[in-house]
Amino acid sequence: MKIMWVNPVGKPYADEAIAALIRDIKSAEAEVDVVSLNTSPSPVDLEYRAYEALFYTDIIHLVRHAANNRYDAAVIGCFYDPILADAREISGEMIVVGPCQASIQIMANLCNRFSVIVGSQKEVNQMHDNIHLYGYGRQLASIRAMNLTTTDFLHNKQITEQAMLQHAGEAIKHDYAEGIILGCTLEYGFYRRLQEQLDVPVVDCIYAAYKTAEHLADIKNRFGWKPSRKWSCAPPPEKSIEEFGLFQDEPPIGNRITIN
Amino acid sequence: MKIMWVNPVGKPYADEAIAALIRDIKSAEAEVDVVSLNTSPSPVDLEYRAYEALFYTDIIHLVRHAANNRYDAAVIGCFYDPILADAREISGEMIVVGPCQASIQIMANLCNRFSVIVGSQKEVNQMHDNIHLYGYGRQLASIRAMNLTTTDFLHNKQITEQAMLQHAGEAIKHDYAEGIILGCTLEYGFYRRLQEQLDVPVVDCIYAAYKTAEHLADIKNRFGWKPSRKWSCAPPPEKSIEEFGLFQDEPPIGNRITIN
Amino acid sequence: MKIMWVNPVGKPYADEAIAALIRDIKSAEAEVDVVSLNTSPSPVDLEYRAYEALFYTDIIHLVRHAANNRYDAAVIGCFYDPILADAREISGEMIVVGPCQASIQIMANLCNRFSVIVGSQKEVNQMHDNIHLYGYGRQLASIRAMNLTTTDFLHNKQITEQAMLQHAGEAIKHDYAEGIILGCTLEYGFYRRLQEQLDVPVVDCIYAAYKTAEHLADIKNRFGWKPSRKWSCAPPPEKSIEEFGLFQDEPPIGNRITIN
Amino acid sequence: MKIMWVNPVGKPYADEAIAALIRDIKSAEAEVDVVSLNTSPSPVDLEYRAYEALFYTDIIHLVRHAANNRYDAAVIGCFYDPILADAREISGEMIVVGPCQASIQIMANLCNRFSVIVGSQKEVNQMHDNIHLYGYGRQLASIRAMNLTTTDFLHNKQITEQAMLQHAGEAIKHDYAEGIILGCTLEYGFYRRLQEQLDVPVVDCIYAAYKTAEHLADIKNRFGWKPSRKWSCAPPPEKSIEEFGLFQDEPPIGNRITIN
Amino acid sequence: MKIMWVNPVGKPYADEAIAALIRDIKSAEAEVDVVSLNTSPSPVDLEYRAYEALFYTDIIHLVRHAANNRYDAAVIGCFYDPILADAREISGEMIVVGPCQASIQIMANLCNRFSVIVGSQKEVNQMHDNIHLYGYGRQLASIRAMNLTTTDFLHNKQITEQAMLQHAGEAIKHDYAEGIILGCTLEYGFYRRLQEQLDVPVVDCIYAAYKTAEHLADIKNRFGWKPSRKWSCAPPPEKSIEEFGLFQDEPPIGNRITIN
Amino acid sequence: MKIMWVNPVGKPYADEAIAALIRDIKSAEAEVDVVSLNTSPSPVDLEYRAYEALFYTDIIHLVRHAANNRYDAAVIGCFYDPILADAREISGEMIVVGPCQASIQIMANLCNRFSVIVGSQKEVNQMHDNIHLYGYGRQLASIRAMNLTTTDFLHNKQITEQAMLQHAGEAIKHDYAEGIILGCTLEYGFYRRLQEQLDVPVVDCIYAAYKTAEHLADIKNRFGWKPSRKWSCAPPPEKSIEEFGLFQDEPPIGNRITIN
Repeated sequence: MKIMWVNPVGKPYADEAIAALIRDIKSAEAEVDVVSLNTSPSPVDLEYRAYEALFYTDIIHLVRHAANNRYDAAVIGCFYDPILADAREISGEMIVVGPCQASIQIMANLCNRFSVIVGSQKEVNQMHDNIHLYGYGRQLASIRAMNLTTTDFLHNKQITEQAMLQHAGEAIKHDYAEGIILGCTLEYGFYRRLQEQLDVPVVDCIYAAYKTAEHLADIKNRFGWKPSRKWSCAPPPEKSIEEFGLFQDEPPIGNRITIN
Repeated sequence: MKIMWVNPVGKPYADEAIAALIRDIKSAEAEVDVVSLNTSPSPVDLEYRAYEALFYTDIIHLVRHAANNRYDAAVIGCFYDPILADAREISGEMIVVGPCQASIQIMANLCNRFSVIVGSQKEVNQMHDNIHLYGYGRQLASIRAMNLTTTDFLHNKQITEQAMLQHAGEAIKHDYAEGIILGCTLEYGFYRRLQEQLDVPVVDCIYAAYKTAEHLADIKNRFGWKPSRKWSCAPPPEKSIEEFGLFQDEPPIGNRITIN
Repeated sequence: MKIMWVNPVGKPYADEAIAALIRDIKSAEAEVDVVSLNTSPSPVDLEYRAYEALFYTDIIHLVRHAANNRYDAAVIGCFYDPILADAREISGEMIVVGPCQASIQIMANLCNRFSVIVGSQKEVNQMHDNIHLYGYGRQLASIRAMNLTTTDFLHNKQITEQAMLQHAGEAIKHDYAEGIILGCTLEYGFYRRLQEQLDVPVVDCIYAAYKTAEHLADIKNRFGWKPSRKWSCAPPPEKSIEEFGLFQDEPPIGNRITIN
Repeated sequence: MKIMWVNPVGKPYADEAIAALIRDIKSAEAEVDVVSLNTSPSPVDLEYRAYEALFYTDIIHLVRHAANNRYDAAVIGCFYDPILADAREISGEMIVVGPCQASIQIMANLCNRFSVIVGSQKEVNQMHDNIHLYGYGRQLASIRAMNLTTTDFLHNKQITEQAMLQHAGEAIKHDYAEGIILGCTLEYGFYRRLQEQLDVPVVDCIYAAYKTAEHLADIKNRFGWKPSRKWSCAPPPEKSIEEFGLFQDEPPIGNRITIN
Repeated sequence: MKIMWVNPVGKPYADEAIAALIRDIKSAEAEVDVVSLNTSPSPVDLEYRAYEALFYTDIIHLVRHAANNRYDAAVIGCFYDPILADAREISGEMIVVGPCQASIQIMANLCNRFSVIVGSQKEVNQMHDNIHLYGYGRQLASIRAMNLTTTDFLHNKQITEQAMLQHAGEAIKHDYAEGIILGCTLEYGFYRRLQEQLDVPVVDCIYAAYKTAEHLADIKNRFGWKPSRKWSCAPPPEKSIEEFGLFQDEPPIGNRITIN
Repeated sequence: MKIMWVNPVGKPYADEAIAALIRDIKSAEAEVDVVSLNTSPSPVDLEYRAYEALFYTDIIHLVRHAANNRYDAAVIGCFYDPILADAREISGEMIVVGPCQASIQIMANLCNRFSVIVGSQKEVNQMHDNIHLYGYGRQLASIRAMNLTTTDFLHNKQITEQAMLQHAGEAIKHDYAEGIILGCTLEYGFYRRLQEQLDVPVVDCIYAAYKTAEHLADIKNRFGWKPSRKWSCAPPPEKSIEEFGLFQDEPPIGNRITIN
């Protein structure tokens, strides 16, 4: 089983950390590549739509490349699930997983109402729309913003954990959340201590997305449950791709860590 | 990893068949019990709400029993997901999976619109409500009824397959479905040939539910993602259960097949 | 006109009180039975889904019995409206009324937004789903929990009334409720004083449900407006009930008070 | 108990027929006035919004008058429920009933899905919006138009009955309706034969509205469940009405039939 | 291009002020009439539904008159958008604009979430329903009431501005509004200073409605995009209007100010 | 007033045609640039999500460029409204218009229900999601696909017109559409003849989008109604853009036609 974790950013700086997380928990039969892009110049902060959008075209290239190289599943590693529907169209027989959708689907088996803890209020509207379109608007207790940045998540661990505890605690107390999702792939490393202290399930979206990718790759291989290619799922015809000379460059990979 | 598949009916007649299906596909580390109830008298036909309801009380007993006996997950093996919310309340640290919810969550990763093929128009309204409450009403292309019974599914295989082909084909053509879910646990054995002929993913809900149970049990054990016990998920206090003398009888198991 | 009020619990302890309430307000032509179950062991606290579920099977039996004994209407006397859809399927020509649905339908004629006052936060999610499915989610200002138990409702009347005043007052002031529903059949005896003090309509769900039962029984008898038996409302065929030997035991009645 | 049935039109031509219907079915304690307006000139055909609107101002006057003259309830006798929210604001302690809302609330106790049969496609959109705002959009199977006028309903009884049978039959067969509402107050006189032939409940909206008015008037008098006057339900202050000199003319009554 | 601004009230008192506003901003080719009604007696306070309704019939007359006199567009100058759907039915080839709908459509191009600032809590429910029916319920952050009257808007300018600043500020801070709509045509004269201080777009609904009327009149004339007269948009037939002798009186104009 | 029309594709082939359309109808004070991209290789067929996505990054660059060069408004010239929310974030004080949103907002003033006519069934799901998110899901009668390509729109005019007539006619007859939107910017040149034959408003989305851009640019300049930059509308800080060295290349313009 081959899985690609796409860091949708043009810098390798979180690749190692994510690879380490996946190495710990992957099933024996999975071969995983953690990949970031070679987009340049590249912001590191994906909080802005306009920044995310700078990688959209490259993500499409990369997903197409992965599909052609017999990956069973790819994760687009950002909780916004950027460009997920577009990537799924071009993914051939490969499953594409979004961390937000994966986390919510798990949570819906664990409780009736959940909250999402994010860095900044900026992000709330877009995530709300996503969760609404996924169908879980009625189960969403709240999205609470900590007023912290991804830099804080990575370098001010103590402040971040304290803020997570506070905001998740308020979500439970005031919004009646019954479970918590940490709504950024860089909010890793916190879920277990929070879970112990809050006494509700706390979902880390890297683990949720990665294990969902394994699960969906497994059942794809067993049962043939590949992405539909009918109606809205129909991809561009290969002939047309060829005519336009598309996707002929090297895939826009900046960094790759392989975990066997 | 211990998993219980509950046939929510007081007769063992489909236990063997389902056990055989699971034996084929289970992961090595799973130990599975396929169990039916000892409710008597018992209908075999779960199409009617009033018939389902005859088993509700026993299902609750059984789920409580499984939770106390360290099962990691249980599946309530009917596509109506009967009494799922109630069972989840009393399941302790055990995950409870419903075939309808599991099938839809998988399908939402494979396409944008899907249809469900059921036996009888009778069932449509209740399933529509369930799917709406799960949040997938907008993605549901249609629920189409074949005007066949579960007896047909088991004994008139050829007629059933023909009807499935016809109704799924119409769902694709007229309702613009991009994937098909076979909406009854007794509609097993058909998905692969349908999938080949229809060229869209066709989900068998036994496989979907069972593999989801393994997946959720696995991440529960790894990450501590157990059911929430907060707010609406709070179970009755043990002290109250004891005071009322509840759940002291033997669990209402009529038949059990263990698969190692 | 024959009406059955079902206390969906295996203890007779509130039967007398409810019978007294109904005796006061019933129309002359109504003959009413207040009935509780003989389920044993039985909890008294229906706040938990898993506790409610212990009575589901018996409720179905009882409703079937009432339908066969020419009752015109039955009320399932709990504000969760437990198993209402299932009971309606097997009720033959008899109307089945749920206190929640009845209270809301009345309230929708009296104001544009209402709140429900319940005992515990535990109950809110399930009632929210019910009210959403009944179609009144947009008119629901809030469901506020008093952090009291049904024991408090029955035995700490002063504390309960004080809490009701406070929470209903907050619902009016902060959630802009224009009417109040007391969301538990055991919250009886309070509505009139609350109504005087709050100056908005305060609906007691026993009265609401009982009078709706009389109303619907009356128009059923006048106009032939019996429950539909088409599509999702189709009951199991009598022949199948017979074949499976169902519903042949005595009805699970533990206590009966008849009011002429 | 005093009830006013308002024919919201400036001609008396259906007053007698409606009075006759109500005379047959009213409860002994009800005193009923069937009233039409003296608006002149007046269309008879209320199918058009702009025609309805010609009566809005007069309806408000009349409802205010009824409220001041101790009527317990008034029905605005058109299935569009014209100006219902506005009339409810000025109705003091009097209940105001709309035939559409009343019919649907009854139907929601009899089945899970229903269709409405109307004269012309013209009307469908407005009724759809009303039913959506009442909260029953998900339970509405369809609104089917017969391409007939109210003149046909009154004078071509056989053609009308035939068309009702056909369209209701199609609603049952193709839209999976489980109950039928005749969606015009002038569609009276047909429900019973249709009901016998279609074998589902068929609601006549005059009977539904009138009996709901009696029911709500009764519980208002018993329990003090009067219209809320809080927030959106607050009426104009009497002082302001006086200052502006409003509602000082005779009420716009063109015809009145009293039934004791 | 001929545009009519209808003050839907029987007093001329705001006509001059509104005419002055429009004079400043109208395009050169527009000829505008600001018109109020001759309804008598007439309230000035349109906060109450029952007061609004006193003008409904006259508004219909006036819109019909404008349509017949070759106006290209009319604005019904109240943020409730009173009787908009009805007026649009009878408007022939003339566009009818509602200030609420116009303001929201503009705002939806400027931000993702907005709040509306109104005078009194009384108004909130009705506006909420309107905005929901227009389809913008999900984008509505809040409707906040200042507890002020239209008299305050006109005569206590400083208090009003202070209250607007406070409530809009709270809407931005607590409800995460990204834009503000001043939800009353008499809240004119404030938007620009608020906009500077709040640093988000603040829409004055007179300007929004008037400029939308010009825009829609312009594209109607250019592209023939006149109101549909199909299905629910079909007007009463002229023959029927004639038969009933409708709309033959002078139009109910009380005051008219023409701006060239 | 400066307006940019962005053809979101890396080929100039429709630029001239669109420029000609706009030249005819633009207001005197508008200065318009029709611009396509220099993306290479480039598909011409934007029906596929994955093809659209190839331009997303360049569109963001271009919108940023336009905002910095004092354009008042830009139109992203594709009926999918590709990347609209992202472009609006980075547009500074410039308005960004999407043809789908603009067409629907106009249509909502002309009728109660409308249909969209598109080339291929492939597109329907994505447009449905967009229209749902814009809030017009309830007013959408249908999206009907003609099974034609954009090549047909441009080169097989007669076949295209015939197909439009047929599908729009069916939308009116069977889906009860009251207005028609031609749902592709390349469906230009047809609306007027269709409108005459169908006798309902038929909106050409190039005209709708362009004239909306003028309208919004005009009121932005008059009233200061610029895009909000609060919460979800906050752009990346200029300092961060600089630090990352973003947007320093020439704007990705392949072709530009200026219309004065």
